[in-house]
Amino acid sequence: MQKQRIVVIGGVATGPKVAARARRLDAEAEITVVERGALVSYGNCGLPYYLSGLVSNLLELRRTPAGLLRDEAYFWEQKRIRVLTGTLATDIDRGRKKVAIANLATGETSTLPYDKLVLATGAHPVLPPFAGLELKGVFTLNHPVDAEQMVTDIKTLGVKRVTIIGAGGIGLEAADALSTRRLQVTMVERLPQVLPSVLDQDLATIFTRHLERQGVRILTGLRVLGLEGDASGRVRRVVTETGVEEADLVVVACGVRPNVELARSAGLALGETGAIAVDQYLRTSDPDIHAGGDCVQNRHLISGQMVYVPLASTAARHGRVIGDNLAGHAVRFPGILGTTVLQAFDYNLGRTGLSEREARGLGYQVMATLVSGSDSSHFHPWHGRLILKLVVEAESGRLLGAQAIGPSEVVKRLDVLATALTLGATVDDLASLDLGYAPPFSTPLDVVSQAGHVVQNLRRGLAKGISPLALKQKLADGADVQVLDVRQPEEVRGRSIKDRRVTSIPLGNLRERLNELDRAREVITLCELGVRGYEAARILTQEGFSSVRFLSGGLAAWPDDLEG
Amino acid sequence: MQKQRIVVIGGVATGPKVAARARRLDAEAEITVVERGALVSYGNCGLPYYLSGLVSNLLELRRTPAGLLRDEAYFWEQKRIRVLTGTLATDIDRGRKKVAIANLATGETSTLPYDKLVLATGAHPVLPPFAGLELKGVFTLNHPVDAEQMVTDIKTLGVKRVTIIGAGGIGLEAADALSTRRLQVTMVERLPQVLPSVLDQDLATIFTRHLERQGVRILTGLRVLGLEGDASGRVRRVVTETGVEEADLVVVACGVRPNVELARSAGLALGETGAIAVDQYLRTSDPDIHAGGDCVQNRHLISGQMVYVPLASTAARHGRVIGDNLAGHAVRFPGILGTTVLQAFDYNLGRTGLSEREARGLGYQVMATLVSGSDSSHFHPWHGRLILKLVVEAESGRLLGAQAIGPSEVVKRLDVLATALTLGATVDDLASLDLGYAPPFSTPLDVVSQAGHVVQNLRRGLAKGISPLALKQKLADGADVQVLDVRQPEEVRGRSIKDRRVTSIPLGNLRERLNELDRAREVITLCELGVRGYEAARILTQEGFSSVRFLSGGLAAWPDDLEG
Repeated sequence: MQKQRIVVIGGVATGPKVAARARRLDAEAEITVVERGALVSYGNCGLPYYLSGLVSNLLELRRTPAGLLRDEAYFWEQKRIRVLTGTLATDIDRGRKKVAIANLATGETSTLPYDKLVLATGAHPVLPPFAGLELKGVFTLNHPVDAEQMVTDIKTLGVKRVTIIGAGGIGLEAADALSTRRLQVTMVERLPQVLPSVLDQDLATIFTRHLERQGVRILTGLRVLGLEGDASGRVRRVVTETGVEEADLVVVACGVRPNVELARSAGLALGETGAIAVDQYLRTSDPDIHAGGDCVQNRHLISGQMVYVPLASTAARHGRVIGDNLAGHAVRFPGILGTTVLQAFDYNLGRTGLSEREARGLGYQVMATLVSGSDSSHFHPWHGRLILKLVVEAESGRLLGAQAIGPSEVVKRLDVLATALTLGATVDDLASLDLGYAPPFSTPLDVVSQAGHVVQNLRRGLAKGISPLALKQKLADGADVQVLDVRQPEEVRGRSIKDRRVTSIPLGNLRERLNELDRAREVITLCELGVRGYEAARILTQEGFSSVRFLSGGLAAWPDDLEG
Repeated sequence: MQKQRIVVIGGVATGPKVAARARRLDAEAEITVVERGALVSYGNCGLPYYLSGLVSNLLELRRTPAGLLRDEAYFWEQKRIRVLTGTLATDIDRGRKKVAIANLATGETSTLPYDKLVLATGAHPVLPPFAGLELKGVFTLNHPVDAEQMVTDIKTLGVKRVTIIGAGGIGLEAADALSTRRLQVTMVERLPQVLPSVLDQDLATIFTRHLERQGVRILTGLRVLGLEGDASGRVRRVVTETGVEEADLVVVACGVRPNVELARSAGLALGETGAIAVDQYLRTSDPDIHAGGDCVQNRHLISGQMVYVPLASTAARHGRVIGDNLAGHAVRFPGILGTTVLQAFDYNLGRTGLSEREARGLGYQVMATLVSGSDSSHFHPWHGRLILKLVVEAESGRLLGAQAIGPSEVVKRLDVLATALTLGATVDDLASLDLGYAPPFSTPLDVVSQAGHVVQNLRRGLAKGISPLALKQKLADGADVQVLDVRQPEEVRGRSIKDRRVTSIPLGNLRERLNELDRAREVITLCELGVRGYEAARILTQEGFSSVRFLSGGLAAWPDDLEG
């Protein structure tokens, strides 16, 4: 049998993974990776950590754990993979199974014959349609050279004020990194909240409150109209719908779009999301052409719909699956949950599965609740608080998605929930998970199981919850409601909702002071985390109060800063 | 309907949970908790953290997250639960449904009628059968008074040397705490390894190496014959089979046994483990008597067998389920995985599901492997290494259990694996989990998925692994084997196996130096983590070498310290 010729277009993340896996399975294949940039196989997700100074040398993002630099020589010596950098794939001739390539330095063109072709062309940053993007000091954070130039500018030009356009994950990682360098950061987001593709409004509001406490200016629901520079062509101002922001440096972080031009011009099918369509084996509409990573769409494991969620974790899994398939193993890629996690300003946060907004948009009957808790035993000095949100199908109790945020071990819970989601768990499953407990790691009932219990209680009709945003709105609307704060007097003195409709009765006195409440009017009980509020709601319900709800997640999840 | 009378025997962990849940569901019930000690509802698992000084006040272990002290008044005021401390339940009259109790201070006796009775009698420390346990300075770590007296002794008596008898979880937490107080710690374990009920021998050996580096003396496979004191009746020596250890303080941590006397004398069925037998609703053989926590046995979710694994996490879940059932909700307790986690000497470790030893003992066809990896991106300065062990049913690929150890985010992976185990996951499921990735939290392919890939490779026959212990034994046995170290020269200089059978060829030179190896003889490839060793094994196999294995987990999992 003739040696198989494999050509991979794209040398970052997916591409090298495909090539390496194919090589391990097929010693004979001729494997070529074509990369238009100068570098291959760098850890793009590490750029914010170079920007912050935590990673001091960009070379670290190109090394293996053993310290080897992943350059062309590495791929040839270690893996017998030929890497062509600075080389653009310009055309695919599917009939003759050839790729036309051009050396970007010399202009020289040639063709690469293939038996199997892999498109790992990645994505490019969205550039918004306003003037001034060409000014010096305007960056995206997509490539090592961006990060390198930004650091140089900061060190040499006396940069003080940065405006970040777009408050998604990259924008926030950049904001964190630049704040670490003591720059004044302003974020401008067109949509009404930060992290619109990660968090529902409730958790986004909590995060915004935290960011503002850290000194970040957050301007949401605001459109940028353009950038203006000085005489030297350097950016100085960001013009928005409401005014002008002074800025010495601008980061444009408005998301990415898949690089599909090559696929489109070759007549390969694109999907409804605009990214390349692939089947379960990550084959495009041409069975000899696979595609993976940031240039393809994926099936969402919960909704079954095709979605465009470009992530490095997905890219890595794609690479292995494509490598398997190239070597003749029919391995499927089942799909994604869109699990996204982020560390910024000492908070950890993320999501997995469907958000509440998405689930409702898809027509699910949704039960969503916030649960506040601790990531480890509260007597352990290093414990931290977290707020967890579960999105559940009301009738079946099946988990649809989860979000979490806090200065604590949030991502552990999201990974547990991602695993549970993948395997079709219900809230009953969450309630009875046998998770590891020792004081540094958890509470005897981990907050994931606690959240399962809360939803079990809601589904059994033992209590009704109200979200902090809904209660805030209700109070703002002037509703005739009794808000019952059952915390201890010293907690109430510390911070509380200032409103004449709030009554304070500590839980321990509630049973003998029931006559201070009007049984005929609605009561909303609250405490710090939600546990005592629920307990108070149970007492009132048992005592015959007709309309009782408790504040889900407690004041810990309240959208505003509260004072004593 | 008459008010239901609920009597709960046992006021720590399970008991108060039962009572609180029952109260939230049944406002009318008369609920009484009987506790023979002076304290109720304290966080026993926090004692090591008091011993170390990390928790400065024992009262912290008795407070709620909101700071309320969980004493008799708290339970009455907050929950209308009557708590009788210092009260011993002496007899159960099942016919008349009455419990005889005695006030331990006054000697006064009386009876408590019940409709439903709950046994939450806990467990007691095993006291080994040798002389000297009555000496001053000999402790178990089972109750706040133990910890308090130990701290007093350490502070006032110039304690320098501590011997801990038993190297299980409690023993190791105590060792960690006492080392923090700068005491010289010796551990004596009767069985041949540390943590015999948590880790298989391979990971236990790695942990032992770490403990010894931290200055702890570890004496395994050694029986204690007795303790000897001085003229004042204070312990001074631990006599073992091989000699005498000087000791100013002795901790006896030989495990616990269930408190079943009351159940036995009432004629309730005990199980094959010696603990109280309960059904899925946590009912004893008397349907009006439930039992939970450390006094009962549990069904293991993987093996289906009854096991005795007393854990605070299980106790908490039992409490809720019993409370539900008391209130008329038929809620089941599905069983346990025996998930156990531990932090000691800056290592985190644990297990979930079956160990390799257990799985083999139960007759499973087992595939077990070690996988070494990083808990977060290797370019992130705070990453740490971890070693993960998967135990898999060979034919089906179903996960049976897992263990992990390292100075890193180990417990996150164990919780993911516990969730996967609960829901019946296979290694294919692990391989395709969509876990959260960002550099501070993970690698693009989390080590859990990497481990799934390793087992996939083994199951497909792409390579064969050999465990570090097996290779060490093979070398010791004088086997005719070629060991091929494919690390870089500087890594080899740093630390390596010193043996004439070891050849060093960096992976990048392997293809052109194949003639240095004998194709007819067995080759075992190795590297630091296992990845390059696997890659080398693939190259050799593809080149026609007949017998090739790679070192699972790499030198990172080697049982001895290695020098350069």
